[in-house]
Amino acid sequence: MRLSRLFTKTSKSAPSDAETPNAKLLIQGGFVDQEMAGVYTWLPLGLSVLRKVEQIVREEMNAVGGMEIFMPSLQPKEYWTTTKRWEGVDVLFKLKSQTGKDYALGCTHEEVVTPLVQKFIKSYKDLPFAAYQINTKFRDELRAKSGVLRGREFRMKDMYSFHTTQESLTAFYEKVLEAYVVAYNRCGLNVKVVQASGGVFTQNMSHEFQALTDAGEDVLIACPNCDFGQNSEVATYKVGDTCPKCDGTLAQMKGVEVGNIFDLGTKYSDAFDLNFTDEDGTQKKVLMGCYGIGTSRLVGAIVEVHNDERGIIWPKSVAPAQVHLVSLNSKNQEVQDQVTEEAEDLYDNLTKQGIEVIWDDRDASPGQKLADADLLGVPLRVLISEKTLKEGAAEWKERASSESKLVKLEDVREDVVSFVTE
Amino acid sequence: MRLSRLFTKTSKSAPSDAETPNAKLLIQGGFVDQEMAGVYTWLPLGLSVLRKVEQIVREEMNAVGGMEIFMPSLQPKEYWTTTKRWEGVDVLFKLKSQTGKDYALGCTHEEVVTPLVQKFIKSYKDLPFAAYQINTKFRDELRAKSGVLRGREFRMKDMYSFHTTQESLTAFYEKVLEAYVVAYNRCGLNVKVVQASGGVFTQNMSHEFQALTDAGEDVLIACPNCDFGQNSEVATYKVGDTCPKCDGTLAQMKGVEVGNIFDLGTKYSDAFDLNFTDEDGTQKKVLMGCYGIGTSRLVGAIVEVHNDERGIIWPKSVAPAQVHLVSLNSKNQEVQDQVTEEAEDLYDNLTKQGIEVIWDDRDASPGQKLADADLLGVPLRVLISEKTLKEGAAEWKERASSESKLVKLEDVREDVVSFVTE
Repeated sequence: MRLSRLFTKTSKSAPSDAETPNAKLLIQGGFVDQEMAGVYTWLPLGLSVLRKVEQIVREEMNAVGGMEIFMPSLQPKEYWTTTKRWEGVDVLFKLKSQTGKDYALGCTHEEVVTPLVQKFIKSYKDLPFAAYQINTKFRDELRAKSGVLRGREFRMKDMYSFHTTQESLTAFYEKVLEAYVVAYNRCGLNVKVVQASGGVFTQNMSHEFQALTDAGEDVLIACPNCDFGQNSEVATYKVGDTCPKCDGTLAQMKGVEVGNIFDLGTKYSDAFDLNFTDEDGTQKKVLMGCYGIGTSRLVGAIVEVHNDERGIIWPKSVAPAQVHLVSLNSKNQEVQDQVTEEAEDLYDNLTKQGIEVIWDDRDASPGQKLADADLLGVPLRVLISEKTLKEGAAEWKERASSESKLVKLEDVREDVVSFVTE
Repeated sequence: MRLSRLFTKTSKSAPSDAETPNAKLLIQGGFVDQEMAGVYTWLPLGLSVLRKVEQIVREEMNAVGGMEIFMPSLQPKEYWTTTKRWEGVDVLFKLKSQTGKDYALGCTHEEVVTPLVQKFIKSYKDLPFAAYQINTKFRDELRAKSGVLRGREFRMKDMYSFHTTQESLTAFYEKVLEAYVVAYNRCGLNVKVVQASGGVFTQNMSHEFQALTDAGEDVLIACPNCDFGQNSEVATYKVGDTCPKCDGTLAQMKGVEVGNIFDLGTKYSDAFDLNFTDEDGTQKKVLMGCYGIGTSRLVGAIVEVHNDERGIIWPKSVAPAQVHLVSLNSKNQEVQDQVTEEAEDLYDNLTKQGIEVIWDDRDASPGQKLADADLLGVPLRVLISEKTLKEGAAEWKERASSESKLVKLEDVREDVVSFVTE
């Protein structure tokens, strides 16, 4: 993508009400635009990141056998009164149609998925299975804050699983737990798996996933050597204790919650009377699990973890592009043409190989181009200028490193391919 | 995908309130589930079709230079009072937050995109450009009907373009018009481009796209030889006239509207005071165009056009799979094992080559398997049974044809690859 053709622009200053790094950097970089508190438009570069995060999550859900579906946001009131959550969930957006019908706007989808699967489940032979979606969710938050970490409208992957026995549910739950850790790691996040207190949903098994960052809201007692962690509010271990999972010594850490999983038991099967006929011919209640990852929140958490004073440092797996190509302008037209030609050649070559390149071909100062490259946070910056061309080279600088080097023009393409695929 | 693992099931009878072929067939085949009138869940096979349609539309919008973004459904009331559409659009869903704020639920996004791009447009150098999204939309219809053709919640691609001059807008408008025809053709639809009367939006240039089908609601006077058409309600030509674009003789046809495009002029630029500084230093209003395709409606239109008494006949480009592999069960266990082995071998081989295969490996009767294959409408059915194995062959039947033939087992894989890629 040529920056000269991108309609968004970077901005030097952050909005005054952007308190957190993710809000500041995502808005300054033109990744998102705040429509109102807690509600954002995903602009081209931001949407590219969000899509990559969602694709990683999708692949991991497919890997555990989840089937993707797409459920409605408009949900009939009757479903929510059936579960006693029409009044019980305080963040539920409610609206009324012209015809007088009351709808909830989905903040979660147990109320839709349970009557949906009821149409297809008859016998134990139809179980177990899991269905998931990646969709927009709505929460009527009293205070929306922390950028894309806590929105009134946000993106989420929610999966629901259905089982005949507790063994089957527990086995799948553990498989998903592992798949979540893989998905976070692929997104460049180190997470602790924290046993949750149960909360309003259930007294059954429940875990939350905490991405470690000093900017985190939650305080953990966690192991530096493995993924064990406890929320300090309900911790049974203390700093200095030996980790119950390995030999590590527990320490205090801060985290951002990036997902949670619940054993729902028969809560929703009871409400909707979701039964199956077991092998022995008796009717039994279906057991359910649910598994959520806020995908837009995940983008925010990645920024919270991966940034410095100059901007974002995207992990390769979710970066809006792999290469940020900078061509510096020159007052000498002949030199300028040569710089542009070399840059265009490299841009075309890499793009043809399927490598995503942002080319800063704008009529802008070197200072602005370098500052924007740091702000946008693409993993590799390749710079071509009058100075580098005198050496028959391009300047190579990785965003996560402070060092730069010259690479011969004839080697650049191959080196970039190695960098991207390594 | 193995049908035995798919949680949805086909159903022999259509819901009593499903009036149109698309509603009947999509529900019977388990492509969608009706949550309530005008609101559907997209189930695995239906979501696969919807995704393919949306990807075709995305590719054609990218080809004309559109940049993809993702805008919110929650929209502040102030934006809608600015354009006088808070009261003016009767299908606008409205809701109120806990904090007392009024929101609209997006049925269109001029009210979001105009103030959004205002943050980035300063000079004529920033223009022209176009941004689009593929997102869920909401309309508070008094009567939702016709399956996924007219929903209260539906999927849509909406693009908005921004220009300094009418020439620039007209040139882009015509480019999009052509891209639309390409997108419909790629989805297997033959469309007429109908000059619209302007409607409530604008008295400027406007066109709608009509997919021809006898089940269509709209009556057209159209040319059988080119894409010219007029809506009969406002037609200036009549049946038997010579086509103004070619030598064809105009005839009456029926169609389903699958998209429309509008020259918005300065309607929204006036409302939001969206200006740019022109080359001569003067401030001018930005000219806008908007371009919509209802992508879920498009899936419905494809079904309306491509079906017979036994089910859907998906065009290859949007089919939920390319091959429907049927293995018939046998009472002889040895033969059964042989049939399963051959089918599994073919399934694995094709899947590894990236070909999407539905394998009906269920414990079901031949009659049910063949009926379901016709209902689901995958372009090619390959059947393996005791009978075909005796010939060392598989039965080959294309959904759009009434004939079947035997193909030697050693040739099947290669023939399928040819069929899929032809």
